[in-house]
Amino acid sequence: MDLTVYRNSFLSFLKEKATFKEPATLYNPIHYILELGGKRIRPLLTLMSVDAFGKDYKQGLNAALAVEVFHNFTLLHDDIMDDAPLRRGKATVHEKWDVNTAILSGDAMMILANQYLEVYEGDTYKKLMKLFQQTALEVCEGQQHDMDFENRNDVSISEYIEMIRLKTSVLVAAALKMGAIIADASEQDAEAMYQYGLNLGLAFQLQDDYLDAFGDPETFGKQVGGDIIENKKTFLYLKALENLEGDDQEQLLSLFTKPQDDLELKVKIAKELFIKSLAVNRIQQEIKDYTQKAFDVLKDVSISESTKENLIAFGHYLMGRKV
Amino acid sequence: MDLTVYRNSFLSFLKEKATFKEPATLYNPIHYILELGGKRIRPLLTLMSVDAFGKDYKQGLNAALAVEVFHNFTLLHDDIMDDAPLRRGKATVHEKWDVNTAILSGDAMMILANQYLEVYEGDTYKKLMKLFQQTALEVCEGQQHDMDFENRNDVSISEYIEMIRLKTSVLVAAALKMGAIIADASEQDAEAMYQYGLNLGLAFQLQDDYLDAFGDPETFGKQVGGDIIENKKTFLYLKALENLEGDDQEQLLSLFTKPQDDLELKVKIAKELFIKSLAVNRIQQEIKDYTQKAFDVLKDVSISESTKENLIAFGHYLMGRKV
Repeated sequence: MDLTVYRNSFLSFLKEKATFKEPATLYNPIHYILELGGKRIRPLLTLMSVDAFGKDYKQGLNAALAVEVFHNFTLLHDDIMDDAPLRRGKATVHEKWDVNTAILSGDAMMILANQYLEVYEGDTYKKLMKLFQQTALEVCEGQQHDMDFENRNDVSISEYIEMIRLKTSVLVAAALKMGAIIADASEQDAEAMYQYGLNLGLAFQLQDDYLDAFGDPETFGKQVGGDIIENKKTFLYLKALENLEGDDQEQLLSLFTKPQDDLELKVKIAKELFIKSLAVNRIQQEIKDYTQKAFDVLKDVSISESTKENLIAFGHYLMGRKV
Repeated sequence: MDLTVYRNSFLSFLKEKATFKEPATLYNPIHYILELGGKRIRPLLTLMSVDAFGKDYKQGLNAALAVEVFHNFTLLHDDIMDDAPLRRGKATVHEKWDVNTAILSGDAMMILANQYLEVYEGDTYKKLMKLFQQTALEVCEGQQHDMDFENRNDVSISEYIEMIRLKTSVLVAAALKMGAIIADASEQDAEAMYQYGLNLGLAFQLQDDYLDAFGDPETFGKQVGGDIIENKKTFLYLKALENLEGDDQEQLLSLFTKPQDDLELKVKIAKELFIKSLAVNRIQQEIKDYTQKAFDVLKDVSISESTKENLIAFGHYLMGRKV
């Protein structure tokens, strides 16, 4: 199980499958966003999962592509909704072209993703499609919750966790389960891979929330404190608000609801409140717990111990921790 | 074969399948657009086609719903792209809610449409899905061509026909072929139903173009001359431009490219030029020819003569002509 092999194989496949069809105005933006790069974690998980169950990982390439193209479709449409100017340091599709192009190219990507699964036959095809559609709908629901939360002041921690489960984790989980389905794993094993992915996905997203505030500016890649500046109701904010009382609570609320002149100061105070409220300790504990849950479900899966160790190592790698 | 029976059965099914799930902000707009009404032609065609091959038309209800929900998804996203304030006399989704809601609810509708097909098994399921995805992608391509044409002054008649084939006809064709697939028709018969739908769809869209300019204001339902007011490059405009010469051609070009104070006069002159150029005669001939082509392909289909007569009667009904 070598991530570099998976990655290179996937990237060649992506290049090979890039169809330059007419109308170019529809397909060029699709190539553009797919070539912006990214970590390609989801397709790797599909290939890794096929491999884990003893089949040639290349059998998973089409499913891996489906997952990656679907993921990039969600980025494309989310960027319109967030009015984001940049994606991976380059202009977003609706900025480089326009909103209409971004809507329609996104629509086409969702369809293309489904088409990549057509290489699979019979029962495998239907199982993959059902899981993929179910997942796709959940991702839309997660995105809707995320948008709804912007206009609400009573979001609970459990609602937040449910939102990131839908918006992020189910696709990670499905990527793994699709690999298991392709490798003809038992329903029980396929479901265990799903749970491994679901918990890893939750840990990963919470880790993202943590790093956004407390990451090392040298290595994080994005602006540290971005979520605070944008008043995002992340786990850290919600937990701090829940734990704090009196003046501290009011200060945090005020920071996130009233316009702030000094953004650097805003980030500094918010982070102090995240620490003081023990929200930071709590998120670190949650990340550990979800990671551990992910590893625990692997116990009963019919794969070799060395494969399990690899999946656990991958979990640690994702969480950015040393094993 | 009774259209009222199909229609009522479809409408009950639509009501029954309407899921009121959370988040309401995602699903309410979906119910809203599906309940705006419409002619429901595409789902009727699916039911009619199942019936034509001797199976219980109710077996086609899920596919009919898939086709109708997909069609309404395209309306939802097209309305954003066209910045249309009204759909069927009511506020469009992006007007009643907002653009983000319209984008995301549309995305969810495309996924729901795919899910409705999951009741079909094995080979039937895969055949339906492949056709449905292929069709969906073509509809996106058609919409892109339509948008591209707005910025071009050299659109040919054949490009226009190809655009309406993709944007409108392939879904009509697929609605019929899906019925044939569900009824286990032979590949040849299923393909003939597709061709019947494709040609009927072309005739239907050209009829729409014709009625938009020359329909009876009492019965047409939309503003007569709307396409002319919006400078749409329809068959009538393109053909007139091709046939006219000198001052007439320049007048038409000028009408469609320079702002006009008197829109009533603009419509009047444009219609006169459509007549003078024989574009009107030509479109009427094209409508007849495509309708005839649709009927011709029925000749070799293994369905009863009375069923063929019904399908022909339906074609005449669609074209709004007396049999």
